[in-house]
Amino acid sequence: MIRVGVVGGTGYTGVELLRLLLRHPGVTVSLITSRGEAGRRLDDLFPSLLGACDLTFTDPAKADYSACDLVFFATPHNVAMREVPALMEQGLRVVDLSADFRLRDVTVWERWYGETHAAPELCAEAVYGLAEINRDAIRAAQLVACPGCYPTAVQLGFLPLLEAGVIDASGLIASCGSGVSGAGRQAKLGSLLTEAGESLAAYSVAGHRHLPEMEQGLADMTGGQVQLTFVPHLVPMSRGIHATLFAKLTSNDVDLQSLFETRFAAEPAVVVLPEGAHPATRSVRGANTCQLSVAQPQGRDTVVVMSAIDNLVKGAAGQAVQAMNLMLDQPETTGLQGIALAP
Amino acid sequence: MIRVGVVGGTGYTGVELLRLLLRHPGVTVSLITSRGEAGRRLDDLFPSLLGACDLTFTDPAKADYSACDLVFFATPHNVAMREVPALMEQGLRVVDLSADFRLRDVTVWERWYGETHAAPELCAEAVYGLAEINRDAIRAAQLVACPGCYPTAVQLGFLPLLEAGVIDASGLIASCGSGVSGAGRQAKLGSLLTEAGESLAAYSVAGHRHLPEMEQGLADMTGGQVQLTFVPHLVPMSRGIHATLFAKLTSNDVDLQSLFETRFAAEPAVVVLPEGAHPATRSVRGANTCQLSVAQPQGRDTVVVMSAIDNLVKGAAGQAVQAMNLMLDQPETTGLQGIALAP
Amino acid sequence: MIRVGVVGGTGYTGVELLRLLLRHPGVTVSLITSRGEAGRRLDDLFPSLLGACDLTFTDPAKADYSACDLVFFATPHNVAMREVPALMEQGLRVVDLSADFRLRDVTVWERWYGETHAAPELCAEAVYGLAEINRDAIRAAQLVACPGCYPTAVQLGFLPLLEAGVIDASGLIASCGSGVSGAGRQAKLGSLLTEAGESLAAYSVAGHRHLPEMEQGLADMTGGQVQLTFVPHLVPMSRGIHATLFAKLTSNDVDLQSLFETRFAAEPAVVVLPEGAHPATRSVRGANTCQLSVAQPQGRDTVVVMSAIDNLVKGAAGQAVQAMNLMLDQPETTGLQGIALAP
Amino acid sequence: MIRVGVVGGTGYTGVELLRLLLRHPGVTVSLITSRGEAGRRLDDLFPSLLGACDLTFTDPAKADYSACDLVFFATPHNVAMREVPALMEQGLRVVDLSADFRLRDVTVWERWYGETHAAPELCAEAVYGLAEINRDAIRAAQLVACPGCYPTAVQLGFLPLLEAGVIDASGLIASCGSGVSGAGRQAKLGSLLTEAGESLAAYSVAGHRHLPEMEQGLADMTGGQVQLTFVPHLVPMSRGIHATLFAKLTSNDVDLQSLFETRFAAEPAVVVLPEGAHPATRSVRGANTCQLSVAQPQGRDTVVVMSAIDNLVKGAAGQAVQAMNLMLDQPETTGLQGIALAP
Repeated sequence: MIRVGVVGGTGYTGVELLRLLLRHPGVTVSLITSRGEAGRRLDDLFPSLLGACDLTFTDPAKADYSACDLVFFATPHNVAMREVPALMEQGLRVVDLSADFRLRDVTVWERWYGETHAAPELCAEAVYGLAEINRDAIRAAQLVACPGCYPTAVQLGFLPLLEAGVIDASGLIASCGSGVSGAGRQAKLGSLLTEAGESLAAYSVAGHRHLPEMEQGLADMTGGQVQLTFVPHLVPMSRGIHATLFAKLTSNDVDLQSLFETRFAAEPAVVVLPEGAHPATRSVRGANTCQLSVAQPQGRDTVVVMSAIDNLVKGAAGQAVQAMNLMLDQPETTGLQGIALAP
Repeated sequence: MIRVGVVGGTGYTGVELLRLLLRHPGVTVSLITSRGEAGRRLDDLFPSLLGACDLTFTDPAKADYSACDLVFFATPHNVAMREVPALMEQGLRVVDLSADFRLRDVTVWERWYGETHAAPELCAEAVYGLAEINRDAIRAAQLVACPGCYPTAVQLGFLPLLEAGVIDASGLIASCGSGVSGAGRQAKLGSLLTEAGESLAAYSVAGHRHLPEMEQGLADMTGGQVQLTFVPHLVPMSRGIHATLFAKLTSNDVDLQSLFETRFAAEPAVVVLPEGAHPATRSVRGANTCQLSVAQPQGRDTVVVMSAIDNLVKGAAGQAVQAMNLMLDQPETTGLQGIALAP
Repeated sequence: MIRVGVVGGTGYTGVELLRLLLRHPGVTVSLITSRGEAGRRLDDLFPSLLGACDLTFTDPAKADYSACDLVFFATPHNVAMREVPALMEQGLRVVDLSADFRLRDVTVWERWYGETHAAPELCAEAVYGLAEINRDAIRAAQLVACPGCYPTAVQLGFLPLLEAGVIDASGLIASCGSGVSGAGRQAKLGSLLTEAGESLAAYSVAGHRHLPEMEQGLADMTGGQVQLTFVPHLVPMSRGIHATLFAKLTSNDVDLQSLFETRFAAEPAVVVLPEGAHPATRSVRGANTCQLSVAQPQGRDTVVVMSAIDNLVKGAAGQAVQAMNLMLDQPETTGLQGIALAP
Repeated sequence: MIRVGVVGGTGYTGVELLRLLLRHPGVTVSLITSRGEAGRRLDDLFPSLLGACDLTFTDPAKADYSACDLVFFATPHNVAMREVPALMEQGLRVVDLSADFRLRDVTVWERWYGETHAAPELCAEAVYGLAEINRDAIRAAQLVACPGCYPTAVQLGFLPLLEAGVIDASGLIASCGSGVSGAGRQAKLGSLLTEAGESLAAYSVAGHRHLPEMEQGLADMTGGQVQLTFVPHLVPMSRGIHATLFAKLTSNDVDLQSLFETRFAAEPAVVVLPEGAHPATRSVRGANTCQLSVAQPQGRDTVVVMSAIDNLVKGAAGQAVQAMNLMLDQPETTGLQGIALAP
């Protein structure tokens, strides 16, 4: 049995990671840390774990990672980059769910996060944990940087089109909506039910930190430059991300449906819907699945891709477990076969 | 006191129209018809009207419009076009909230609605009821066709840009979200709380009936052809439409904020937000207001406009009352000054 | 035109009070204070007020109440009791929406609020602002203590039964649900959409501060002792309180429907539903109305009353304006005739 | 591998049953019927099953149950009673999720359901499938009648109190709230997001069909008569039932917390919360768990029990699988260990 640790498990990605790991047949959670909740039982903080978990939060200062084979970071950005290097020196493998190692270019990271990176040497070494693109590299990695939630939905949606070279990469558009859990388990005014409920609004239109991550990944697919206009919206629901992607087709001679079906035929975490269907976040709630569909409205030259994930699963904790499975040479879907909860 | 009638008041636009008309100081509702609910008190069907309304639904076959000065149609499409001609011959003025007279080109209407138009001669005569564009024509009109909800949000958002000729009208994109009331007060599976709640999904990507209406209106603004890609989404809330619009700037030399503020400075139903702010549907809930903002992310050549309305107010009943006020030479905002209900 | 001031307008009762007062034909808001937001425009904090309000928050330390005829306190408890005495000495009339003057018995107040009352002499003088019980006293009052939201719904529901002496007052039960706005416009974890959404739970079962207020009011109705078991629940919606009340009938010879209809026949803010109907909070959203119904399931000896209000209107700001109208000898419903927003 | 069939899988209990059975290690779903959807793939009707299920609905007229060891009925009431007798004659075991066999007294059933029972002889034979009460009988049963959702939450909450004889069984009160999925996957006006969303209301106060089922079960616990006043409420969420129970204590000498903890210590599907905690439906979403807490507010003689379940899991499909496990001599929690999805 593989022993895993979780650093910082008091957020929504933390509890979601526990939901998956506690039922994963190949691993045991041997350690979970939290500065603020040290000594408290997890099921006191998260009553959904009552009856399923006897763990108690450990003070990170007293955490002994020697009992772990692999450690997850479910912390806000800015923590992993300071703590990961020491763990890696001990030979531990790390899956970081935060943003610290997602950008290879440290100067870009520092511009968007407004601080000096504490482990710049690891930015190039970290493997970007999108299995659909980097499967083999993830298997061999010591440090995996899990993609952000929006970047997962957006990159999977553009992937077949950019790989096939059938769209103009200089004018990509992503209009996305996220449930409120994307803002984290933090007492923010804007996340109140009274503020976010019964409302729809865009946010961070001037610039969102997921933009450079997406442009890096999209550029990798095309081999050249890309320009993406990204508008996230806050949607009155807990979970789910839906991305609606727009691009100009540069070729009229492409069977879009077949392109998507072929590209993802072997992918366990991606489902391409039948022509004319629309993915819905409710259909992937709790599941490690990205549902995709593609359309060409009115037969014109703008292609529209729709992409739906659960931001906490395929957009975070599920994706992290998928990476862990690859790193541990386990079947990729182990512990990830739960069916979406609908309604 | 002006006497108005309402044909078909059992839907959400009907009850919203009553909410506004019953408190309008210049009119009295003298007649409201419904085939299915004839003889039933309105406040029995709509308990929100209890204590505010003693009206009873009249059978349309027995309706006597001679007591009315102006008649609203709050019916599904396909009703007004059959009944309006006779009313107009009696000299009545009509405000139609349905889609029957929104398209000037009857062949386009017939293609999208899949039937023969019953009053094609009125399609050219009807005045499109968007006060921000057609104020004077509305004043003089005998028949006003109220814009659809999406078209209101989208046209107001593109208006300054197209009038100023600063965007490429051949590649317009509108990614919109609507509350479930947009689907009407009908027992549809997809509108159940268990289906539409806690979910986000696009719909009708292949083609939505509001597309030709929007392209007609946008083309009018630019004097030439336009192409719009329109993707509507169903959002888990009751009311509200949010449109996020994308276009390529053809000029780098335009002060977008000032362009919007100037264009709408005198408009009572449009508020341009300060730079950097994002409109939210919650801020216009129940109000006859469109909140707009404009941005140019990363200083690149894609302009983003955000537009928020209450689909039942500025997107339907409020807009209809605004048109009625103009037709009756009353101050345009009479009966429409209620402040948005937030939270 | 009467000039009113508002102390502490940054919460949900504050913005709701402004929504009503800004459209009230008999008053003008001349002053609104906030320590934290002094100098900020109200419509910057509350975009729902854009276009409807040019006011700016005043620092309470610099507030000049001499321009006011009447002052509302929309503050958390513990503020009004320290500031009201000075205002009253200046001859101002005060409507306090907080809990400071709701309990006549200062020792009870101090036990439930855990601190010393700063103005105990005013507790007996303050008039409890439930117009349906205290109309004449409110007219003459210098200081009105507005009832809490739960107490409004619960007291109006029990009122006819206790006045008529037909139930056992020693075993009253109130099972109530409130929307999240009842928790205030504060960044609390439990009020997040991700926590309060898609969930139902009781809270404060061991003891809620509204209990002594309710028992005081219910005892007044019956002239003797009462015992109430009160269980509030947090309901995944923004607005609304629904109270379901249970009591043992001590008489079998009472026409419950008629008892309720008669008691409230002249009350402008109370609607008794027809027999067999159930009030819903959606039918009073935004309206200063309490909808009531009464039932006797299976003809047994337990009576059930259902009571629905908008917690921010009849449960707070609307009730405060109702009291103000009485104090100013204006028609009681002035500025309160807005129809509920449904859906 | 046990082969199971599902009759009528197009509702919410149907798809939930499939979510559990498709991941149950001990069974395989060999047949699922639907009159209306015969020939359609399940994952076309329920996109949440995409990638998890290759089944197609079978026309019930052509269904061959000989391939099944056990059959679930996930039909509306009135179907199972007509079809179960034939299946039982073939030796099949049946778990009926509908109401047809829940009441032992056929005359009571006929009064509440307004029709003649088609298989009265089976009403006494059927075992009521509440494992916490009838575990051994379920193991041996050929026909199990799964409890309704409200009856599950209410009976488990009253169970320790009635078994211990410490409350007055003649004045029980249950004030309950249910998510909208309780109304089924049917296009009803009252279940629309626009009607049920952002609202709280009671329904069926005059009499709900779960009342006789609850009174039957509660009477069994006490050995005598009981009287229950039951008020269900519709709550704006998809899943979840919360029951708040009230009763008069007849003994002051009972340690309520210990009574509950002892009674349920060995129950895998019941969790008693620590004193002072409140169960929330979000903490059991998707899990086959009932969370309970008990309180004695103000130390008075009214006891309050709170009970939370997922109506589709412990209130329907999960409970059915729990019964199946017992019938098949499998560990009771097999296939039911999924952790609740929170947030």
